Amino acid sequence: MMTTRSARSSTIAAHAEVLVRETALAARAAQCEFAGATRAVKDAALLAMASALRARSGSIRGANEEDLAAAREAGMKEGLVDRLALDEARIERIAASVEEIAALPDPVGQVVDGSTMPNGLRARRLRVPMGVVGMIYEARPNVTVDAAALAVKSGNAVVLRGGSAAGRSNAAIVAALRASLADRGLPADLVTTVDPAGREGAQALMRARGLIDVLVPRGGAGLIRAVVENSSVPVIETGSGNCHVYVDASADLAAAVGIVVNAKTQRVGVCNAAETLLVHQDVAQEYLPAAARALWERGTTLHADEASRAILADPAAGEGVERYLVAAVEEDWGTEYGSLDLAVRVVDDLAAAISHIRRYTTGHTEAVLAQDVAVINRFIAGMDSAAIMVNASTRFTDGGQLGLGAELGISTQKLHARGPMGLVELTTTTWVVEGDGHVRP
Amino acid sequence: MMTTRSARSSTIAAHAEVLVRETALAARAAQCEFAGATRAVKDAALLAMASALRARSGSIRGANEEDLAAAREAGMKEGLVDRLALDEARIERIAASVEEIAALPDPVGQVVDGSTMPNGLRARRLRVPMGVVGMIYEARPNVTVDAAALAVKSGNAVVLRGGSAAGRSNAAIVAALRASLADRGLPADLVTTVDPAGREGAQALMRARGLIDVLVPRGGAGLIRAVVENSSVPVIETGSGNCHVYVDASADLAAAVGIVVNAKTQRVGVCNAAETLLVHQDVAQEYLPAAARALWERGTTLHADEASRAILADPAAGEGVERYLVAAVEEDWGTEYGSLDLAVRVVDDLAAAISHIRRYTTGHTEAVLAQDVAVINRFIAGMDSAAIMVNASTRFTDGGQLGLGAELGISTQKLHARGPMGLVELTTTTWVVEGDGHVRP
Repeated sequence: MMTTRSARSSTIAAHAEVLVRETALAARAAQCEFAGATRAVKDAALLAMASALRARSGSIRGANEEDLAAAREAGMKEGLVDRLALDEARIERIAASVEEIAALPDPVGQVVDGSTMPNGLRARRLRVPMGVVGMIYEARPNVTVDAAALAVKSGNAVVLRGGSAAGRSNAAIVAALRASLADRGLPADLVTTVDPAGREGAQALMRARGLIDVLVPRGGAGLIRAVVENSSVPVIETGSGNCHVYVDASADLAAAVGIVVNAKTQRVGVCNAAETLLVHQDVAQEYLPAAARALWERGTTLHADEASRAILADPAAGEGVERYLVAAVEEDWGTEYGSLDLAVRVVDDLAAAISHIRRYTTGHTEAVLAQDVAVINRFIAGMDSAAIMVNASTRFTDGGQLGLGAELGISTQKLHARGPMGLVELTTTTWVVEGDGHVRP
Repeated sequence: MMTTRSARSSTIAAHAEVLVRETALAARAAQCEFAGATRAVKDAALLAMASALRARSGSIRGANEEDLAAAREAGMKEGLVDRLALDEARIERIAASVEEIAALPDPVGQVVDGSTMPNGLRARRLRVPMGVVGMIYEARPNVTVDAAALAVKSGNAVVLRGGSAAGRSNAAIVAALRASLADRGLPADLVTTVDPAGREGAQALMRARGLIDVLVPRGGAGLIRAVVENSSVPVIETGSGNCHVYVDASADLAAAVGIVVNAKTQRVGVCNAAETLLVHQDVAQEYLPAAARALWERGTTLHADEASRAILADPAAGEGVERYLVAAVEEDWGTEYGSLDLAVRVVDDLAAAISHIRRYTTGHTEAVLAQDVAVINRFIAGMDSAAIMVNASTRFTDGGQLGLGAELGISTQKLHARGPMGLVELTTTTWVVEGDGHVRP
């Protein structure tokens, strides 16, 4: 039995490898043909993709109904079923987002730098497409469209592997996108899927070094970790965010209340929401009750250390509102709650705040609220994160808010991309060096 | 027996892991302390490192003598022994190269871009050190110094793992560098080594994700491949070069002879030397005999396809020089000779040249020799390599030649760095965003 099962599973893996290889080679051929496309051609293709989604919304919704029925039968939680569901309005929003990507500037062909050398060689570094981009993601059909549109805009081909629960929806979407490309005389294989290869398809994608130029996982922390750990293809990692807010003794305390409330509660479940509040001991007595009241008013539970509990236990703190207050344990400092929960700690000084953050951060975003410029500068120098907010909410670490346009995700890695990632991260560069018979002496 | 041996080897691996972990944490602490160092402090540290190498050249040479004796006893080839050897002149050159790195501009603190947002937020993206850089390299003691100097200049700490044959030399060099840092009140752990952990130390470095920010392998193709395949730490890969020169029908044929000779023979054994010559059929009859004569005069063996052999077999071709001519086999097209050998092929047209290159290239450098601008533009658009030379030798893909200063290596990967890599590739960026109490609506 064991032998048979293991033989069968290795046959499945071998089939998946063949499918991924053939798909990636077809994608490469399509990308070679498409690499020189002008922005006008690419934008027209994107507009055609948006139209095709609208025109085929009936068949896409039909396929989605089948996915939804199967998901409910399999006992999928309603929250997840909702993320999987496509109605007319959602398909319209997805189509509109493709049109927004068409409106973005084209990174390809941008001259990054260059100069004329002392010997007269004329060198310039150009942005060019990455080539074949692999995407591994979960059961959200909108990501299928998003990934295809970002890839086409940046001159790449994309090989998709979506969550199996969305299999029928994704197949219908991919068929619509491919037909719209073919109708315009463009290579349909710019958008391909290895979904038929199942789980083994994802594994084979991770091993397809040389066939896939870059792999972008999109989804929960578990998915991203699995891809990072198992992939021999280079990965662009979007990380999780355990973001901190430090309120210094020199802070404008009224502004600091507004910023903490915004960073924690303006939208929960996003990676740039604050998870830990650190308060300088000299202002804790004054600041914490005011901040707690505002946070409690919005239903936030505070996971407080002993010093802050001593202050917040005072009946005057948060008088008249429901007080959500629990004792912080070691685990709280490393937790990305993704909910209306906030860890709170009183620190001796700036150095203690920096030490705490360096120990527990995931390297996403940290905020310093201070009026003392020396404190601000020491805080900036002490961090090792993708973004540092000075007297502003952590929620501003966002491609749209920082003027980058559509966002692939927020990178917490240090190589290639750090912080909000735009289209430019799906490109690489090439040197073009022109001479007149130049040889090296 | 097997159990005992396997138990022993897993004990060694566990020890190596502990050593790497402790070393990396010490390096991290040193880097945190050093991260804010000004250029003046860093350059002074580099000059002190250079002085220490000169001052301790006696003990370094003593250690090197022991390495050399052991290597000869172990039967190391004289070519490799020579690369391992340090004499007074070589130590002087190594020290001088540290001073050259001190003279380079400091990438840290550079403002990459930034702007003021519509809501008044002031955002800028700054270059910051990568953190802890790991280097795995072979038995060339000069790399020890080079790696340490580049790391210090870019505000990083470095964890070294050198070839075991250079163990004593590297220990003496590292001791000198660490002493020079400590003497200036700087953290000695900016420069550390895991050489005592042996082979298992290299393995543990590759698994030290989160402790080591980036791993840079330097050495032969085998070493680089092993690191790329086994590392879970992000790798900056320096690749091999199977570089092509395409001589179009529109080429200036006299200039094309000079360029091919330069690309092949000016220095062999470097990654930007040409390995394959492709000639358009319309000019093959005129060009090949002239090119062959010039290449033969410099002792180059031509591995020629049938069409070019038919031309070169003519007794008039290369009259009066020794004719090194063999039949090309399939393997030749994918070979990086690193020697006075050149594969030669006649192609039907530009499209055939592009197809050949796309099939066999390692993505380093390709040259097009042509006067027809349409050909040049189609060639550029058809390539997928780090550098494209237009009417110039492939040998110009070089940090010094392209104005980047000291070079870490030439990257043929597409993520993070492509082409010649300078100090800037040992940095990452961070967003600093300043507000006045800004919250997100």
